[in-house]
Amino acid sequence: MTKTELLQHIRQTIEESLKATLLELNQNGYEEYYSMLAYHLGWIGDGSGEKATGKRIRPLLLLLVTAAHQADWQVALPSAVAVELVHNFSLIHDDIEDNSQYRRGRLTVWSKWGLSQGVNAGDAMFTLAHLAINKLSEHLPCDVVRQSANLLLQTCLHLTQGQFLDIAFEHRSEVSIEDYWKMIEGKTAALFSACTQLGAIAAQCPPSTIKYYQNYGKALGLAFQVVDDMLGIWGDEAMTGKSTASDLCSGKITLPVLLGLQNNAEFAKRWRKGNIQPSEAKYLANLLAEEGILAATREEADRLTNLALTELSSVHPQGIAGELLHEFTYQLCQRQK
Amino acid sequence: MTKTELLQHIRQTIEESLKATLLELNQNGYEEYYSMLAYHLGWIGDGSGEKATGKRIRPLLLLLVTAAHQADWQVALPSAVAVELVHNFSLIHDDIEDNSQYRRGRLTVWSKWGLSQGVNAGDAMFTLAHLAINKLSEHLPCDVVRQSANLLLQTCLHLTQGQFLDIAFEHRSEVSIEDYWKMIEGKTAALFSACTQLGAIAAQCPPSTIKYYQNYGKALGLAFQVVDDMLGIWGDEAMTGKSTASDLCSGKITLPVLLGLQNNAEFAKRWRKGNIQPSEAKYLANLLAEEGILAATREEADRLTNLALTELSSVHPQGIAGELLHEFTYQLCQRQK
Repeated sequence: MTKTELLQHIRQTIEESLKATLLELNQNGYEEYYSMLAYHLGWIGDGSGEKATGKRIRPLLLLLVTAAHQADWQVALPSAVAVELVHNFSLIHDDIEDNSQYRRGRLTVWSKWGLSQGVNAGDAMFTLAHLAINKLSEHLPCDVVRQSANLLLQTCLHLTQGQFLDIAFEHRSEVSIEDYWKMIEGKTAALFSACTQLGAIAAQCPPSTIKYYQNYGKALGLAFQVVDDMLGIWGDEAMTGKSTASDLCSGKITLPVLLGLQNNAEFAKRWRKGNIQPSEAKYLANLLAEEGILAATREEADRLTNLALTELSSVHPQGIAGELLHEFTYQLCQRQK
Repeated sequence: MTKTELLQHIRQTIEESLKATLLELNQNGYEEYYSMLAYHLGWIGDGSGEKATGKRIRPLLLLLVTAAHQADWQVALPSAVAVELVHNFSLIHDDIEDNSQYRRGRLTVWSKWGLSQGVNAGDAMFTLAHLAINKLSEHLPCDVVRQSANLLLQTCLHLTQGQFLDIAFEHRSEVSIEDYWKMIEGKTAALFSACTQLGAIAAQCPPSTIKYYQNYGKALGLAFQVVDDMLGIWGDEAMTGKSTASDLCSGKITLPVLLGLQNNAEFAKRWRKGNIQPSEAKYLANLLAEEGILAATREEADRLTNLALTELSSVHPQGIAGELLHEFTYQLCQRQK
């Protein structure tokens, strides 16, 4: 099997497993309840299709880890489904918390069905995720299932802690770079780290290997978020599908913004006045780039990527899946969208 | 030990266990995150104290079942903590979904900390619940822990299904009595049924006994909700702490309202116009009572209570705890608040 074939096979299986999990909810009288979740996952409704589904990065990462350790990656499918559902639960609630009307060019669940159904749809997705991971028991011993389920729950606790910080920072006059790392460790890196660990746990790797995967996933997740921050200010709108102005205009606390506040008085003065308009965003982005903030952000992303690759190399992932893990890590951190 | 002593001991232990579980969240930098949850549970902030904590009905019910089957009820504490946290998660999100500013005379979490933190606090409480139940593993075999954790998750799925119906019914012109039973089965009865089952599972009762407890809890939960509906229209404001007008004024779909719509043309006409004012509520409540709707609602509650007591008698709960279960069932269904 070539790399392309393996990737295609895994991606297709992820999508089928997600669909099978969701379809159990499509019961008599609950068709609309099911629709909200299927719509969010990009399968039905206006604008459905490949662009709407998202990249399924997390389950892919998870299954590649399992496959890279002489195990059948299909055994880990319940974990893969679970992490993707957790990710999507957090998106549904994030959209409410950030008051976002659109995601990937489509109406968000709460803006389509109302706030109440939006909150509840997120809760349903969240529950489904934790139910899904319990299906590991079809192929794995009880203690491995419990370890996996517990790890996913601990990760969700970190998610809510990161989210708490993110919301709190909006109203805080001073946010340090240290605060920022703490926030994105919870909001982004915790779930990446869970993915890589869950992949190794399903392959029944020894604790020392799982520990390396914990560090690998965390570094990768941090790098992923820093790149996201960068694209949110300097990304090509045509590539990302988001308005590049949006991160500066939404007042989101990101690494470039914090570096800008520290290093450029003009930027800091404008930022503190608030309500940056789309018409100003290009000028401010250039101002930050000229100050060296784009380069500094890129440097942080590269440092974290290298850290991730070092941790990954230590556990010698095998075969095509191992090669794909290295390539995938590199691609995620060099992505333009 | 007398009944009063046992009850007091159990109640105190529930509160201590809940506090110990929550305190793990009170970490450096996350004090406010912890505060939201501790405030909601009635321990801190304006109006904290016994009136604010709620009655802890669900964990009490659960532990009495365990105690009534020759098992140490302390073994079931993780389940008891978990069901109370699930109940409170659902309250935090319900208050958002119902746009309720007050609960038990205190500001709700979302109205105190804002919508975003409110949604996130509910997510945190939810996660904590499912983490808590995994601590059953200290005293019980792995498969019993998994069975318990899965049951709680299935229950949460039912909760979101019931909640979906409740929200959807607000915009539906016709809701049948059958729809109503389906909704409260998810919203209320599923968690009661989980409590009684989890108590029996922790006592390692045979499947046939657990099945009776499933039916008992479901009937009790349905009865509890019907009584709640009754108190929401005819309850004594001084006793319930809620405005008795509130259920009619909020447009909530309850059993008395559905019976009223079927049987009284004047009520139906006024209801369909919407926006019932507090000044009209007393007149409409009397109108429904004169039509026999209060008596019919009471009759339904009694029918369900008897069904619950019959199921309970079938499994012969033992000792003081067994007696307390019978009394508790009766009290919950005859309560005035």
